[in-house]
Amino acid sequence: MAIVDITVIPVGTATPSVSDYVAEIHTFLKAYNGDIKFQLTPMSTLIEGDIKELLEVVREIHELPFQKGIQRVCTNIRIDDRRDKENTMERKLQAVQDKL
Amino acid sequence: MAIVDITVIPVGTATPSVSDYVAEIHTFLKAYNGDIKFQLTPMSTLIEGDIKELLEVVREIHELPFQKGIQRVCTNIRIDDRRDKENTMERKLQAVQDKL
Amino acid sequence: MAIVDITVIPVGTATPSVSDYVAEIHTFLKAYNGDIKFQLTPMSTLIEGDIKELLEVVREIHELPFQKGIQRVCTNIRIDDRRDKENTMERKLQAVQDKL
Amino acid sequence: MAIVDITVIPVGTATPSVSDYVAEIHTFLKAYNGDIKFQLTPMSTLIEGDIKELLEVVREIHELPFQKGIQRVCTNIRIDDRRDKENTMERKLQAVQDKL
Repeated sequence: MAIVDITVIPVGTATPSVSDYVAEIHTFLKAYNGDIKFQLTPMSTLIEGDIKELLEVVREIHELPFQKGIQRVCTNIRIDDRRDKENTMERKLQAVQDKL
Repeated sequence: MAIVDITVIPVGTATPSVSDYVAEIHTFLKAYNGDIKFQLTPMSTLIEGDIKELLEVVREIHELPFQKGIQRVCTNIRIDDRRDKENTMERKLQAVQDKL
Repeated sequence: MAIVDITVIPVGTATPSVSDYVAEIHTFLKAYNGDIKFQLTPMSTLIEGDIKELLEVVREIHELPFQKGIQRVCTNIRIDDRRDKENTMERKLQAVQDKL
Repeated sequence: MAIVDITVIPVGTATPSVSDYVAEIHTFLKAYNGDIKFQLTPMSTLIEGDIKELLEVVREIHELPFQKGIQRVCTNIRIDDRRDKENTMERKLQAVQDKL
């Protein structure tokens, strides 16, 4: 199980606002028919699943601003992939909260 | 108002677990006496405040694993700094949720 | 044409050194039979090509430390994907150097 | 000795081009009077020096697009900070090239 933390920045937008593009990503994720979990944070979107499927989802998400006429996209991705333990978003939060 | 999204990865730990180091960051942030808000996510820590103060906090957080004997730290930071509007974590989430 | 900027951090290594893992990535890239260009920098590996092929290469690179017994990998990826112009590593450098 | 790898993305530019802003960073760095080394890559700017000085330089670089009228800046920073060995850009490249 891996977790991806992704931000997609459209470059060359008329205004500083990008919430339309982030909303588009979450509309896509809600309609996505696969084995993932996802969460919106103030700074990015977190997606949990199998690494192969996650990178497929990343590719589709990265394309979304181009479909709205944007000519340049800067996407930033963190991957946390752990194979000795079940690495879910819930378990990672719990592991830290248990130590506070 | 700016928001920082930070991960601090200690390199050369005996095991794959880093939750001790993340808990240390949040113990520091809880005791921190300044004008910031912070939030733990499954993939990073989000901190909201004035950019100058945020970079000071980043420097102190980056040092924490060294104080526990780690010899190498890879820190990853996203900054979202918006000057035309009040750019809080709450407002950013709301801006997207209003469009879903 | 897109460019990926990737760092692959093995978590849980005995020592702070990761150059073995970076060398492994470049051995893979040298043997890779596809339409990409790549470059080693002091902080990451840059790879130029079609976005679909790049994300395939990312997946394979991300797997390499697991094949050497590592149990956790934190991979960080920047993608710069521009569709209005030919976005090569060479052209991007030139565009900046022409303005200095 | 630490190394910072920084990209500064202005959000809300009229066109997809950002080379003016990158050139501005390198004009700043050339005129900067301090103990750092820096290098332009096709995807970012690498800066080597003491971590405290580096974060000061990061703060100044992050401000530059605002001085040109941009209202939102997304800055992405990787820090590699190693304390058991002299961690220069040159030494890191050599450590990998020796293993190829």
